Amino acid sequence: MNTTTTSPCKKIAIVGSGAIGCYYGARLARAGENVHFLMRSDLAAVRARGLTVTLPEEKFHLAPEQLHTAATPKEIGPCDIVLVALKTTANASFRQLITPLLHADTAIITLQNGLGSDEQLAAAFGPERIFGALCFICVNRLAPGDSSEATGSTIECTSTGTISFGEYQRPATERLRAIAEKFTRAGIKASVHDNLAELRWRKLIWNVPFNGLAIAAGGITTDKIMADPALETESRALMHEIAAAAAAHGFTISGSFIEKQLDTTRPMGPYKPSSLIDYLAHREVEVETIWGEPLRRARAKNVPTPRLALLYALLRALTARR
Amino acid sequence: MNTTTTSPCKKIAIVGSGAIGCYYGARLARAGENVHFLMRSDLAAVRARGLTVTLPEEKFHLAPEQLHTAATPKEIGPCDIVLVALKTTANASFRQLITPLLHADTAIITLQNGLGSDEQLAAAFGPERIFGALCFICVNRLAPGDSSEATGSTIECTSTGTISFGEYQRPATERLRAIAEKFTRAGIKASVHDNLAELRWRKLIWNVPFNGLAIAAGGITTDKIMADPALETESRALMHEIAAAAAAHGFTISGSFIEKQLDTTRPMGPYKPSSLIDYLAHREVEVETIWGEPLRRARAKNVPTPRLALLYALLRALTARR
Repeated sequence: MNTTTTSPCKKIAIVGSGAIGCYYGARLARAGENVHFLMRSDLAAVRARGLTVTLPEEKFHLAPEQLHTAATPKEIGPCDIVLVALKTTANASFRQLITPLLHADTAIITLQNGLGSDEQLAAAFGPERIFGALCFICVNRLAPGDSSEATGSTIECTSTGTISFGEYQRPATERLRAIAEKFTRAGIKASVHDNLAELRWRKLIWNVPFNGLAIAAGGITTDKIMADPALETESRALMHEIAAAAAAHGFTISGSFIEKQLDTTRPMGPYKPSSLIDYLAHREVEVETIWGEPLRRARAKNVPTPRLALLYALLRALTARR
Repeated sequence: MNTTTTSPCKKIAIVGSGAIGCYYGARLARAGENVHFLMRSDLAAVRARGLTVTLPEEKFHLAPEQLHTAATPKEIGPCDIVLVALKTTANASFRQLITPLLHADTAIITLQNGLGSDEQLAAAFGPERIFGALCFICVNRLAPGDSSEATGSTIECTSTGTISFGEYQRPATERLRAIAEKFTRAGIKASVHDNLAELRWRKLIWNVPFNGLAIAAGGITTDKIMADPALETESRALMHEIAAAAAAHGFTISGSFIEKQLDTTRPMGPYKPSSLIDYLAHREVEVETIWGEPLRRARAKNVPTPRLALLYALLRALTARR
């Protein structure tokens, strides 16, 4: 491990070593943090040949001897910080995967998509230790066949974007700022916010229409959605439904925020939302946390979200028989 | 031709000799009517070996010498009745295909799906000669390869159902009753109604959800839609949107009519709606007349139909890149 860092070297576990988990874990490890990766499919490859991260303007490699990897959480043992980067379709494994990683003060930070993971973690492990982060980033893990023998598993990050942190049902404290500071020291653009729930609703404004329509309209990229006037109109209408549901929960999302989301999507080119990548690769799609849970929360407040309801039903059907 | 009929033998043209056109044309011809089929893809096969119609409880064959077939409307010339059974995606051909078939009193009866064909025919040929019919029937034309050499083209009707006639923007007259009577004499269950536009909205109550969701949910049969609680709920919600749009145009469609549509769909088994058959066969889908035109008419009356809007946008996208 590189030990030139000046930060207090707390023990960090990465649960769910897909693209997001490996990316943040590798950057933190390179910056000198004591990072332990809980791995499944990539374990043998990473132990043999390490982990390569491709950034837009650089590339770095962590050799096997620079990485702590484990097949079970028990091998890792109690940590100070647990970063949860599981697909939400695996949330039923929370207790099994996370319990062995906890001591009395362990912070659990979920980087997961959609709604519901914060609450599930709080119910399982107590709300006071739960934090969340929203990753605005374009990152993919290349399939094993795409990685050269020499470099092991490869994580390709085409846009480093930002990571936004918040605490579960409370404003940000010094504890969260210290965690975010670790990311900043690792070269990651990080920000701290006082309202995690509002952050989550804001991210859904984009994910609900684009991740959903990309699948339901036949497996198309975001440029195709924006080039089709009817689909662009439906994207905007879905965003307004999410904003209405958020408003009923006390979070104001303006029409200009919505237009900005559309404006930033237009120049993105043939972008494949993460759910479309999962769908096309015949992997599970996070239907319940991105569409199902927002729909249930809208209904709980009697907010009509007819387009969300139809889109959810279609996505459930499209992803069920696979 | 069989000339034992007692009916006055008016000259009837069938424009659009797909399953519906061939079915009604063959039954009328068998009953002694003077039927002329305008044919395209099946012309050579029918001229060589005739037309076979399979009904649930019988089967009949019309030999080539019992059939009048033509490749152009000019060969047929002026008729007393023109039955329009084109796909609505071919409506741009109305003038070219129908004009040579008209004399001053020719009745034009469109058997087509959805909304808009009546108006287009009225605009092109004058409203007083326009009639419409809704075919509640399960009928398919078997692909040429499915027909034996001996029997020529085969039309398979698994449910003879009913045909409901109406006049364009006026109550039924004796003229329409005489036309319907020809169908009755041919053994077809026919009824005459005073409000064609209301009939069309009522048929959409079924076609909009089931033809649409069958495609958008991944190419599934109606039993799969009814077995999925979320899709059943969305079907009902789409039906209520259509009923609201119909109400704004002065047509009352009750909740019990909607429930009856769902109830009759449940025992139908793995039924493929006609649009799904077209979609799976990579043929054009009647997106504009079944979803687009009802949506435009709802918008013209400021009736919110958000699910219809989303479904229309998805179907347009799903059928555009084919």
